[in-house]
Amino acid sequence: MSKNAELIAVGTEIILGDIVNTHSQFLSQKLAELGINVFYHTSVGDNPERLKGVIEQAVGRSDIVILSGGLGPTEDDLTKEMVCEVMGLETCRDQAAYDSIVAFFDKIGKTMTENNKKQAIVPVGATVFYNQNGTAPGMAVNKDGKIVVLLPGPPSELIPMFDEQVYQYLASFSDAVLVSKNLRVFGIGESMVETKLGNGLLSASNPTTALYAKEGQVLVRVTARAATKEEAEQLAEPVVRQVKDILGISVYGEDVASLEEVVVQMLRDQHKTIATAESCTGGLLASAITSIPGSSEVFEFGAVTYANRIKHAVLGVPNRVIEQHGAVSEETAVAMAKGILKESGADIGVAITGIAGPGGGSEHKPVGTVYIAVASKLGECNVVRYSLARGKEDERGAIRRLSVMNALNMVRMMLI
Amino acid sequence: MSKNAELIAVGTEIILGDIVNTHSQFLSQKLAELGINVFYHTSVGDNPERLKGVIEQAVGRSDIVILSGGLGPTEDDLTKEMVCEVMGLETCRDQAAYDSIVAFFDKIGKTMTENNKKQAIVPVGATVFYNQNGTAPGMAVNKDGKIVVLLPGPPSELIPMFDEQVYQYLASFSDAVLVSKNLRVFGIGESMVETKLGNGLLSASNPTTALYAKEGQVLVRVTARAATKEEAEQLAEPVVRQVKDILGISVYGEDVASLEEVVVQMLRDQHKTIATAESCTGGLLASAITSIPGSSEVFEFGAVTYANRIKHAVLGVPNRVIEQHGAVSEETAVAMAKGILKESGADIGVAITGIAGPGGGSEHKPVGTVYIAVASKLGECNVVRYSLARGKEDERGAIRRLSVMNALNMVRMMLI
Repeated sequence: MSKNAELIAVGTEIILGDIVNTHSQFLSQKLAELGINVFYHTSVGDNPERLKGVIEQAVGRSDIVILSGGLGPTEDDLTKEMVCEVMGLETCRDQAAYDSIVAFFDKIGKTMTENNKKQAIVPVGATVFYNQNGTAPGMAVNKDGKIVVLLPGPPSELIPMFDEQVYQYLASFSDAVLVSKNLRVFGIGESMVETKLGNGLLSASNPTTALYAKEGQVLVRVTARAATKEEAEQLAEPVVRQVKDILGISVYGEDVASLEEVVVQMLRDQHKTIATAESCTGGLLASAITSIPGSSEVFEFGAVTYANRIKHAVLGVPNRVIEQHGAVSEETAVAMAKGILKESGADIGVAITGIAGPGGGSEHKPVGTVYIAVASKLGECNVVRYSLARGKEDERGAIRRLSVMNALNMVRMMLI
Repeated sequence: MSKNAELIAVGTEIILGDIVNTHSQFLSQKLAELGINVFYHTSVGDNPERLKGVIEQAVGRSDIVILSGGLGPTEDDLTKEMVCEVMGLETCRDQAAYDSIVAFFDKIGKTMTENNKKQAIVPVGATVFYNQNGTAPGMAVNKDGKIVVLLPGPPSELIPMFDEQVYQYLASFSDAVLVSKNLRVFGIGESMVETKLGNGLLSASNPTTALYAKEGQVLVRVTARAATKEEAEQLAEPVVRQVKDILGISVYGEDVASLEEVVVQMLRDQHKTIATAESCTGGLLASAITSIPGSSEVFEFGAVTYANRIKHAVLGVPNRVIEQHGAVSEETAVAMAKGILKESGADIGVAITGIAGPGGGSEHKPVGTVYIAVASKLGECNVVRYSLARGKEDERGAIRRLSVMNALNMVRMMLI
């Protein structure tokens, strides 16, 4: 049977909102990989009474409790003391931990303080995780069927300690492995994806298929649980295929990070180059493309032509096109795409012109109206009018980001 | 006496580690401003039994409980139902909430589903917070000396709802007010800021002065606590002045969001325009400038000249400059800045050329070497070589972002 775990982040700076608790996400992802269920995250300050209460409750209801923070040298740091009190543990000095603290101070060229000696004290019988990146060792206690793991708070100490030592330690208590496949979908909304996939797929328990809506995108995650990684992969595979069959070309990638990554890879594979002409997105499309390592193979020139004068001077958009149809129009978008194609000598030219707001909207072209044109050296040219206002916070930013995603997707469609 | 609060984030995606719980930080900071103590953060999945247990415990031990998430239209969304069960509340349909959901669907041009009607059901006697950015209204219940607030999960809905409605609602239960002033610092590191400000300032208790290091920047936050907002403002003011005196022009703004916001405002105030020529940042500088509403007053043209051929063709950078000194050089940066100045007719031209990696580095110009030049119509021209590699994760992204910040700061210095 799979074990249940919960996470406790200790530190007044968390409950004051000075820092965001990122450990809970990191540890939850790792435990999911190990097939260990996480049911609760708790954060509590450096207060002995409340900390003790939280530990008591966690040990009472979960098989595995992972605490982060509160292992420092000061009097505020109480995690170890409270765990020992709750679990009835004796302590002793761990010589190897002590030596490792001494070695750490040597390495950074500072003098060890009396306080730091406290950090080498561990519960009798604990598994100790030595710390290469700080002074506090981590530790794990296994008593009465409960496993309690204590980790240092700084991410630069916790993350490598977990990856290098704690992951293996916990793997020995797990009898299942989870494998997840992430399919990224663009161009259809979450409810449409839900309808298309249907209840049979979405309510199945192994593999599970879950949907996550992101701005303008949907992530479909297929997760299989089995005794070994290979078996889990085999379980996931037919479901992944089924999802791809149902959603077709709306699935733009499997286990990829972004549309720009996929588009740059397609361009590289096809030995094609791209050039961009942007108005309302102001360079966001070019910067998305160039954020991908190796993009210099496919990208040579992008023009951010905010002013009409520049659209004419740099891209050769005829003044009468702008006068007759407006800078935000199908005709201007097409002229921009063809202009950048000509100026750059690229295989594909993509142009975006629209109204990102908050000002500039009109009755016929409200904020969120965006024209995107994609033209190719072979004479193809597609242009689409989008309405991208969603009435949410940071409307301007959202319109700009959605414009870039739609432009990348139009390029992807032309490359297919 | 000040009230004690705790926060509960509801959602399986949080305890699976799919998303990070940022609401707890946001809400903790806001409650701190209101002088309300936060003692616990809890995250729990969409499981009725465990959710109910967490709510029971919270209502038992805290004066104010704020729940986020689980107000959606689907069967998984159970927060409201469990709160009503724990607190013994009857429910009814809130007509204004219903109308607001209908209006929201009208606005985005979609059809309301049967499910969404559930979102207009509220506890009898609840204070309802209408949602401008989504379908789920927020609500607050005040019963038996316990205040329970329910907020929608998406940040784009929760944040404006809290700022515009919930903050005021909670302020009526608090007897202390915190005022924070945020001073943003660029160009000196956290430890240098710490040394300059000194222990006297940093250990004072009211106002407190706290430092937060962000990528390439430091935030200095001065927080004063008093009975009224005016008194707190008066307490904070001399400390803010002292910090500004000590750090000088490294402080680029007070309660501003970003360097680009400050630079665009300075350009607008001085009626000046700017143009950009980018190589390694690939449009990121232009997109930072154009992310600011009203930037069209100051920005007309940006060129992303990735290829050397384009640096020559579009910016007129002489081929011999690139051949002799390389595309990543002081000479090329200056020629790019002067070139974009000439092409655009702007008052200020700024150019970035560098090696963002992962490839392209050499012994004399390793990854992270970036040249930035700023030239003005009046003949001024500054150029600086930066070494921006920090050896951290997403090195390419970090080098690009730090290049943009340094470029903006160089423009700011020229405008002062």
